[in-house]
Amino acid sequence: MAFTCGFWLLIIIELVCVLYTNGAPTDIELDARALLTHRIDSLNLLLYTFLLILTVLTIWLFKHRRLRFLHETGLAVIYGLIVGALIRYTGTSSNTSTGYHMPVVPEKGYSNNQSLPPDTLWLRHFGKGAGPTPNKTYAYTFRGEIVDVEDNEIDLKATFDPEIFFNIILPPIIFHAGYSLKRKYFFRNLGAILTYALLGTTISSFVVGAVMYGFIQLKQDLKGSFTFLDTLYFGALISSTDPLTILAVFHDLHVDVNLYALVFGESVLNDAVAIVLSGAIQNYGERYQSGSGGFETNAFFRALGDFIGIFSLSLLIGALMGCLTAVVTKFTRVRDFPLLESALFVLMSYSTFLIAEASELTGVVAVLFCGICQAHYTYNNLSADSRSRTKKLFELLNFLAENFIFSYIGVSMFTFPKHRFDIGFIVIGFICAMLGRAVNIYPLSFILNLGREPQIPWNFQHMLFFAGLRGAMSFALAIRNTVSDARKAMLTTTSLIVIITVIVQGGATMQLLTWFKIPVGVEEEVEMLPYTGMRNDVVEPPPRENVKVNEKAWLARIWADFDVKYMKPFLTHARPTLLETLPVCCNPLARVLTTTEQMTQDGQTRSHMDSDSDLCIEENDVGFNAQPRPATRSVITSPQNNDHQYQF
Amino acid sequence: MAFTCGFWLLIIIELVCVLYTNGAPTDIELDARALLTHRIDSLNLLLYTFLLILTVLTIWLFKHRRLRFLHETGLAVIYGLIVGALIRYTGTSSNTSTGYHMPVVPEKGYSNNQSLPPDTLWLRHFGKGAGPTPNKTYAYTFRGEIVDVEDNEIDLKATFDPEIFFNIILPPIIFHAGYSLKRKYFFRNLGAILTYALLGTTISSFVVGAVMYGFIQLKQDLKGSFTFLDTLYFGALISSTDPLTILAVFHDLHVDVNLYALVFGESVLNDAVAIVLSGAIQNYGERYQSGSGGFETNAFFRALGDFIGIFSLSLLIGALMGCLTAVVTKFTRVRDFPLLESALFVLMSYSTFLIAEASELTGVVAVLFCGICQAHYTYNNLSADSRSRTKKLFELLNFLAENFIFSYIGVSMFTFPKHRFDIGFIVIGFICAMLGRAVNIYPLSFILNLGREPQIPWNFQHMLFFAGLRGAMSFALAIRNTVSDARKAMLTTTSLIVIITVIVQGGATMQLLTWFKIPVGVEEEVEMLPYTGMRNDVVEPPPRENVKVNEKAWLARIWADFDVKYMKPFLTHARPTLLETLPVCCNPLARVLTTTEQMTQDGQTRSHMDSDSDLCIEENDVGFNAQPRPATRSVITSPQNNDHQYQF
Repeated sequence: MAFTCGFWLLIIIELVCVLYTNGAPTDIELDARALLTHRIDSLNLLLYTFLLILTVLTIWLFKHRRLRFLHETGLAVIYGLIVGALIRYTGTSSNTSTGYHMPVVPEKGYSNNQSLPPDTLWLRHFGKGAGPTPNKTYAYTFRGEIVDVEDNEIDLKATFDPEIFFNIILPPIIFHAGYSLKRKYFFRNLGAILTYALLGTTISSFVVGAVMYGFIQLKQDLKGSFTFLDTLYFGALISSTDPLTILAVFHDLHVDVNLYALVFGESVLNDAVAIVLSGAIQNYGERYQSGSGGFETNAFFRALGDFIGIFSLSLLIGALMGCLTAVVTKFTRVRDFPLLESALFVLMSYSTFLIAEASELTGVVAVLFCGICQAHYTYNNLSADSRSRTKKLFELLNFLAENFIFSYIGVSMFTFPKHRFDIGFIVIGFICAMLGRAVNIYPLSFILNLGREPQIPWNFQHMLFFAGLRGAMSFALAIRNTVSDARKAMLTTTSLIVIITVIVQGGATMQLLTWFKIPVGVEEEVEMLPYTGMRNDVVEPPPRENVKVNEKAWLARIWADFDVKYMKPFLTHARPTLLETLPVCCNPLARVLTTTEQMTQDGQTRSHMDSDSDLCIEENDVGFNAQPRPATRSVITSPQNNDHQYQF
Repeated sequence: MAFTCGFWLLIIIELVCVLYTNGAPTDIELDARALLTHRIDSLNLLLYTFLLILTVLTIWLFKHRRLRFLHETGLAVIYGLIVGALIRYTGTSSNTSTGYHMPVVPEKGYSNNQSLPPDTLWLRHFGKGAGPTPNKTYAYTFRGEIVDVEDNEIDLKATFDPEIFFNIILPPIIFHAGYSLKRKYFFRNLGAILTYALLGTTISSFVVGAVMYGFIQLKQDLKGSFTFLDTLYFGALISSTDPLTILAVFHDLHVDVNLYALVFGESVLNDAVAIVLSGAIQNYGERYQSGSGGFETNAFFRALGDFIGIFSLSLLIGALMGCLTAVVTKFTRVRDFPLLESALFVLMSYSTFLIAEASELTGVVAVLFCGICQAHYTYNNLSADSRSRTKKLFELLNFLAENFIFSYIGVSMFTFPKHRFDIGFIVIGFICAMLGRAVNIYPLSFILNLGREPQIPWNFQHMLFFAGLRGAMSFALAIRNTVSDARKAMLTTTSLIVIITVIVQGGATMQLLTWFKIPVGVEEEVEMLPYTGMRNDVVEPPPRENVKVNEKAWLARIWADFDVKYMKPFLTHARPTLLETLPVCCNPLARVLTTTEQMTQDGQTRSHMDSDSDLCIEENDVGFNAQPRPATRSVITSPQNNDHQYQF
């Protein structure tokens, strides 16, 4: 810390020297200013790098001593808060870094017939000095609107452009979530996950939006500044969850994998839903500025169309790029050069994000589904070197990005200029965040349990409720737009909710597991037990209802069938080949799309692959490779169909 | 390509729609503009991502077919040139993306008593429309000087801020060079490498600078725009070499490792020398603007001091941070959590860059020496997982960064607005670049051969001369500053030199190896033969002169002795421990600094470590671990001292 402060001091001294230098406005001074800007940028980055180093070392100590009450992200937030407070309250007026400003008017004779402010201003500068070129023209680029002219704090210490979260920090986090998804358990619980993530998040957004709007109508001081769209936007951003801390504890303690899949799967998808939903709300607001923020049916359906269109197109782009990578890695022997292969993998995944962003879709959603496809198909084609390289690379990027964003949440609480502390709104925000989570989990669990044989028991529902930590996505959405007072209050409330939930709910996870009597130490195979809350029970053969359950999961079955019959044979080296699955008339095509490797491999090679690369539905269920299941596979006595009992 | 063009078209249409929208200057339009900017940025990045994907796929094809005439960087340049030409000559006037500009003057009553142009302009904008807030204030930030008012091309397609090269692209490349340096052969040839890199690069810079200045005096049209400092700057930037292509061929064909070490070692260090030298020249110019660019002895010595000071301080910071990482990884058991360990490694290395940049030193030089220290000390303390993860991570980053920069060189040849094609200057530039390389290699080799027993033969000297490809560093230095006409002409010439040398010299490597009869297929151990140009020769026992050679290498010996006795025992888990090497009085301290792991390990564990982690001087030479050398270690019959025969 002393080190960092020393550097800041150095900079300030330097700055004063530079600004008070007399003389003509020469290139030297401009160079000096550019240098100074660069050094301040470096210092800002250095600050966060030190924070992360500190976090890494402390968290190592915690892990070393087996302390689980604080996750690294919680620690990053706390360190961030401390450093933010230090920066804020240790002098060094923030105006120093902004230099000076000059009010300007258009040049005489220049008529502005454009509705937008110009992109660039050209200032003919007449310096005091009489150097060789006293008359220079300087270009200034558009930065933004100054709302509060008194409070000239557009440039501030230790803050970044909010857009970096969407373009640099979130993509690797989201991609990694998709890439490391345990697809077997994810697909097995797909129905419940989709219900919570799609339906639940939408319900939660609207309930939060409506209840907040109601509360605000009661408070005279807030009434004026919030429209219904504002509270709805808040509802959308606060409905995305980020249960990193809880998942880390689940992982360490081997909590039931289905619960893990529910919590993780929901949080991954509700990020995607929240970002698209908030975008649709914003579009709605922009298209139909009725001033009052009232409700228009027509516009509502257009926004709904927006939401569905953007979500599914982003999904499609992500999936297509994932499949394209699979095709390229399957049909070229690029795997002979693992470095090239890894580079290709990274570049294709990154281009997915860029393509989606460039076509006005949501890059974050696209990389999520790209990640899932890369893991499901491409991963099987990669060389061993590339597998470990890409996994480790994204694991590391994810770690760094996550901890950076949480440090930033802490620091920006004090240094970001656009906070607005309003106790009333903050209290309402906390209440609504809890309410929103409750109306997502409990009613939907009730409905799910109606049609789901192994019920989602109460203790799982409580855990799902408490797993509603808020994190990176909520913060990124809140900080993206802070023009109005409403938005500033929303940023402050969101930051506080993130900080409190990460530290308090995260820290209480162990206690909650005990309270709710959630089974820990569950092996992967044992999760096939119904949710009895006990392991090693002797299980009755499943009742006849199972057949009904399977019938319900027809969509998942059709997809799994299609996946095993056509997608996997086409995109990976897996058996059966297309020669076996396509009708005879397509044989020439099938031959082209089948590699020698695919033809020559036997059952052995399959076992080298990631066991997680199978869907929940085994090949023998859909009619292929009907080999007898090895006796060792499952520790419990249950028919094959047991595999599907958690499908909705 | 069609894909990319399609996107461009889409954007253009979109843009036209946005710009011609009527209505009040509302937030919606501002949002739309921000969105458009973001989409154009995404498209720019997408363009380069596609270029890299194309490069990866093509180079795989080349490697697959064992074609070695073109390296991936050469291919990246060629693709870049093609795409750059397509962008340039396929319509879409470049003005569309810059929007419109407005000339402004200071507001009435505002007296500007500052010598510098203001940092921000505040424009009170009176839009046409009569919306609810027609009177808004917008902030504009300083962008730069407009030299040619007619040619408003400050924003251009497919170009980036030149500073990203120094802050994002070069650091991983340079760090990787240090981290992957084969230190054994590097240190064995340290004398020659330092001579070429330090002395040679400086000589080359001044010779190029002087000769170019002379040439320019002869040409009337150029005479006015170039000062001696300009040509000197050109000399410095063109003296850094980047023999990627040649090293790749050397690596594939197992060319003599000493030649490899000479070429690689020199290129790594001369990058560092060139960047510091060019900085010193610029400082000199800024401090002593005599207008004529003449020579001042006093200023010259200050610049020399700058050069030495910045170089050695940067080196020191890099080495210190490397050692700090080694200490942290040695004394904590962070290696139990490989992800944390890798994160720590990356963060410490990155903070080295930031610390150096923030203290006005050269980050690139600091990360180079940090990389060397990380490889020499920290690497030995890392867990197996972190070793492979960090190696693979930086390998990948290096690959992507290198190919990006070469694509960019290609594209920017057509799209960067600040090119100035001057045939005369280009021809002179090519001649001087060759001359500069020649005055580095040949005279210094002659001097080195006077005191060096195994001479550097003529064929090696020729190869060193032809290994003088120019690359990323030259280009980054040239594009950094393009304010004057001289600088623009220098950028064009440098880009062309890079392109031609990478493609032509890179492509001719195989042919040159044959012409110069350079031995290929040399195993690592065989390089201990004197440079006879033949392998498997029976070698005479080395003559008595070897003793003299060893005496000359006293500095390297002292360092190696110190390294083995104190640095390695302190910073790594290597034997001997400090308990054995420190005087008895320091035993308490030594005990603290020695880990249990260090005490308990036997000779076996050492062999697990990177064999390259040893200096050229073996432990038994400096008096420790004097175990008999295994007979299998060397295939040739030579005394121990043979190991040092290549030291200068």
